[in-house]
Amino acid sequence: MSENTIKIERLALIGIGLIGSSIARAARQHGVAKEIVCAARTHDTRRVALELGIVDHAYEHPCDAVKGADLVILCTPVGTYGAIAEEIAPALEKGALVTDVGSVKQAVVEAIEPHIPDGVDFVAGHPVAGTEKSGPAAGFAELFAGRWCILTPSEKSRDEAVDKLDAFWTALGSDVERMDPKHHDLVLAITSHVPHLIAYNIVGTADDLEEVTQSEVIKYSAGGFRDFTRIAASDPTMWRDVFLHNKEAVLEMLGRFSEDLTALQRAIRWGDGDALFQMFSRTRAIRRQIIDAGQETAEPDFGRASPGEDE
Amino acid sequence: MSENTIKIERLALIGIGLIGSSIARAARQHGVAKEIVCAARTHDTRRVALELGIVDHAYEHPCDAVKGADLVILCTPVGTYGAIAEEIAPALEKGALVTDVGSVKQAVVEAIEPHIPDGVDFVAGHPVAGTEKSGPAAGFAELFAGRWCILTPSEKSRDEAVDKLDAFWTALGSDVERMDPKHHDLVLAITSHVPHLIAYNIVGTADDLEEVTQSEVIKYSAGGFRDFTRIAASDPTMWRDVFLHNKEAVLEMLGRFSEDLTALQRAIRWGDGDALFQMFSRTRAIRRQIIDAGQETAEPDFGRASPGEDE
Repeated sequence: MSENTIKIERLALIGIGLIGSSIARAARQHGVAKEIVCAARTHDTRRVALELGIVDHAYEHPCDAVKGADLVILCTPVGTYGAIAEEIAPALEKGALVTDVGSVKQAVVEAIEPHIPDGVDFVAGHPVAGTEKSGPAAGFAELFAGRWCILTPSEKSRDEAVDKLDAFWTALGSDVERMDPKHHDLVLAITSHVPHLIAYNIVGTADDLEEVTQSEVIKYSAGGFRDFTRIAASDPTMWRDVFLHNKEAVLEMLGRFSEDLTALQRAIRWGDGDALFQMFSRTRAIRRQIIDAGQETAEPDFGRASPGEDE
Repeated sequence: MSENTIKIERLALIGIGLIGSSIARAARQHGVAKEIVCAARTHDTRRVALELGIVDHAYEHPCDAVKGADLVILCTPVGTYGAIAEEIAPALEKGALVTDVGSVKQAVVEAIEPHIPDGVDFVAGHPVAGTEKSGPAAGFAELFAGRWCILTPSEKSRDEAVDKLDAFWTALGSDVERMDPKHHDLVLAITSHVPHLIAYNIVGTADDLEEVTQSEVIKYSAGGFRDFTRIAASDPTMWRDVFLHNKEAVLEMLGRFSEDLTALQRAIRWGDGDALFQMFSRTRAIRRQIIDAGQETAEPDFGRASPGEDE
């Protein structure tokens, strides 16, 4: 769909961090919304959002933001969604569409949907995009360009509402896919949640060592470790909520990961070079396909600037 | 030391892959060696090295390359070092300095040192630099600039030889550090070897799933998974040899990693949000220090080009 097929009168963003502020910027850049407003709990966040000029109004209370809004997007950590949905319910306009950007979907549908009043639509969504930075200043308009956005309609979701949300994300540059919430949570457990968990974990393990100093970990991090510190620098509250709300799928995938790691550990202990070589040989093809699918740069080392170029 | 304090008459690189060819380019760029030659087993590799103009001569047999060389660098997988050292020993010139670039050091010293004849020096070394690419065409002269190179002299290493090697790597742009071989292996186990192992492992786990298709893993990899595919695309032979030759330290660090992961798994199962939040909050500081130490770019997402900019 072309980006001109959708026009929002008033877009209300509940939460204006990395994702919320990127939506605000992208919506403005593509002329998708006439008015863009946000709600944020802290005065400082509202001040920054207004100073950046990415919203027309910033409110303390979500209820004030959703008044008159035809599109409401929850952009806070998923653990807050139930309470926010309950709070905004009486203030939602007839005909409004409510959605979210949470990284888990089954628990989110269950938390939000019961609070949605008659005459208001709800369709859950998840833009698969982000960086390790947080806060309104970290957002940028191109964050969603060429990235997938997964919509997970429930049985109650009307087709017209799903199409409208599809058109919104398409206008922001995303490729839109529709998926069952439960399947979404399984896919994201392996492509995002478990990778974050093991990145957080190895950074923690390194931090706890007695035989190796922190200064040594930092100096020699270019051997591989530093890659993991990027996603381990992601927002702690957001990720706590992801793991608490996608428990089943994460534990399932983590179990498989640990089983496979134990097999590698055994191959190392017993000096089984063939098993190691075989395992290490099958993983290049996947990266090639990710690059071919436009989801990764083909540049060596992520095209990362060397220290000399950096400063 | 300034780069003019060292001048090599003939530099012999045994193996001309990513590291060997980067040394050739850097040595030429900084005017460190009068003549640069290499040995490579396959005809195709020798042809590419000559066509790229990074070596003056390319030989099939290491013996021919080391003749007349005052600096010999082993740049093949560490599992080959013992046999190569034995093979080149009779052809080494008096006064020559032999070194290597292997990612493990204790096993390397044990494999090479016994073969070094009287009147020839040996000092083990490890430039902590690389990319996920392999082969002579993947090298570049700036690979070592601003990166650490760790020298691990043994009891037999003469100070003059260590100083000479220090001057060589300094001339190539590296910061040089000296370390005990055993301690090196412990430091690299956590900063490089275990990160590679868990990256290979999660890519393998994802590849084996039945409930999630490979196409889904690829499409939604921007959620974190794709970061791991970079180091899991590294050379399988090199990495097989690393794990076979640093067994003890890798198993020690892997044991700690698994213990810590089990604690996180338990926190998820029991819904212990405070434990998760606490763990996820302590990891940002390390990334900040790595960036401050000039070992990482401060750009969000590694400064990675978005798909749009990429094509």
